[in-house]
Amino acid sequence: MSQNISLVPSAEAIRKDWRLAAKLIDHTLLRPEATREQVARLCREAAEYGFYSVMVNPSNLAQCRDELRSTGVVVGTVIGFPLGATTSTAKLAEATDSLRLGATELDMVINIGALKSGQPDLVQMEMRSLVQLCHGFGALVKVIIETALLNTEEKNLACQLAAAVEVDFVKTSTGFSSAGATAADVALMRGVVGNRIGVKAAGGIRTAADLLAMVDAGASRIGASSSVAIVKELGAS
Amino acid sequence: MSQNISLVPSAEAIRKDWRLAAKLIDHTLLRPEATREQVARLCREAAEYGFYSVMVNPSNLAQCRDELRSTGVVVGTVIGFPLGATTSTAKLAEATDSLRLGATELDMVINIGALKSGQPDLVQMEMRSLVQLCHGFGALVKVIIETALLNTEEKNLACQLAAAVEVDFVKTSTGFSSAGATAADVALMRGVVGNRIGVKAAGGIRTAADLLAMVDAGASRIGASSSVAIVKELGAS
Repeated sequence: MSQNISLVPSAEAIRKDWRLAAKLIDHTLLRPEATREQVARLCREAAEYGFYSVMVNPSNLAQCRDELRSTGVVVGTVIGFPLGATTSTAKLAEATDSLRLGATELDMVINIGALKSGQPDLVQMEMRSLVQLCHGFGALVKVIIETALLNTEEKNLACQLAAAVEVDFVKTSTGFSSAGATAADVALMRGVVGNRIGVKAAGGIRTAADLLAMVDAGASRIGASSSVAIVKELGAS
Repeated sequence: MSQNISLVPSAEAIRKDWRLAAKLIDHTLLRPEATREQVARLCREAAEYGFYSVMVNPSNLAQCRDELRSTGVVVGTVIGFPLGATTSTAKLAEATDSLRLGATELDMVINIGALKSGQPDLVQMEMRSLVQLCHGFGALVKVIIETALLNTEEKNLACQLAAAVEVDFVKTSTGFSSAGATAADVALMRGVVGNRIGVKAAGGIRTAADLLAMVDAGASRIGASSSVAIVKELGAS
C-alpha cells in the first residue's frame, strides 16, 4: 500500500507540466449543502483535468461511483468527519458502508480529544482497525490529525502512532477547523513519517503557489476545492 | 414521546426562577479537542445546576454515563454531526452504538444536500428510520435542520417532513455552520410543527437575554455551552 516519496514530481517539474499537479490533487467537495448537480460537476472536472480523485461526503459516493465509471478517477471519502469525535464502532461502520459504495481512499479524522487526554492507545487502535479493514478491501487510509488543534508534541505523537500501524497517508487538516495546511506542518509530518508513507496537505490550498509550497515541504498529495483554478494557473486551458 | 408545549415555562416565570431555565438547557460540549477533564467538568456542572442534559460527541458517552449515574441528568449525543452528509446506514449504526452507550436523546443532522437536490423522500426516510430505532429504545430524536444553510421554503419543508414522522424535536443549528439560532427561525419552526413537537434553539445562545428571546419565540429546549453563565445571570450562585 505504501508509496515511495521519490515518485512525487518536484515543484520544478510541476511548474512545467500542469498534468503533474492534477495527478496529485484530491478534487474536493465536502460542503454539507452540496447538491447532486454540484457533485456531478466535480466529477466532470476531475475526468476532464485528470485529477487523481474526487473526495466527497459518504452520502455522495454512489453518485460519484456511477459518474466516474471507467474514467480512471479514484473515488474517496471522509470518515468521522470533521470532528473525529464519534466512536470507533461508528467510524468502522461508516468505513464499511463507504467501501461497499465504491470508495477506495478513506480519510479518517483521529480522536483529537483522546490524544489530548493521554489516551494514545485508543487513538492508535482506531487507526489500526481502519487500516486492517481498508487494506482488506485494497483501499487506502489517510488519517487527518487536524494540526490547527495540536501542539508540536501532539503532532509528532499523532504521526508516530499512524506510521507504526502503516496508514497510507498522514493528512494535515479537515478544512473545517480554525486553520488549514502550513508548509511548516507538512515538513514536520514528513520528518516524522519518513519516505515510505504519504503526506497529504489540505485546507486553504487555493493557488498554484500554495500547492508548490506544499510539495516543496514534502507533500505527496494535495486536497483542494479550487483545483481547476490551480491547474489553470499552471497552464491548463 | 411527544411533549406538550404548554408545559414549557414562560419567559416571565424563568426570569423569576433560574432553575426553570436550567431545566430547559442541554449543557453542550462538542468541540473535537474536548478532553476527559473538560467532559468531567461538564457533567459536574450539569448535576450541580440541574441542567436537563449533557450533550456530547459519541466518543464521550461512556464517560458521561458513568459520571452521571443516579443524578437524573439525561445524556444526549449527536449523529452525523455536524455535516449530516454521511449515509443513512452510517447514521443508524452511529445511533445504535450511541444508544448502547447510554444516550437517551439523539440530535441528528439532516441530509441538507438531499433536501436541496429535490430528494425529500430520502431526507424523510432517514428521519423515520432514526425515530423507529430510537423510540424502540425509549430514546428521543431531535432533527437539526441547519437553518443557516436553508431558505424559507426549505426550512418549512424540513419541518413538515420531520413532523410527519413524529420526531420529538426540530432543532435550528449545529453551532458549526455560518450562523446559529434566531428568534425568527424558532417562530417559523414552531409555526410549522405546532404544539405537539418540541423546538430546540441552539447555536450562539450565550446570555440570559438570548435564552429568553428563544423561549418567547417558541423554543422548548435550549442548547448552550455558556449554560453556567446564563443561569448565573438569572440568579444562580
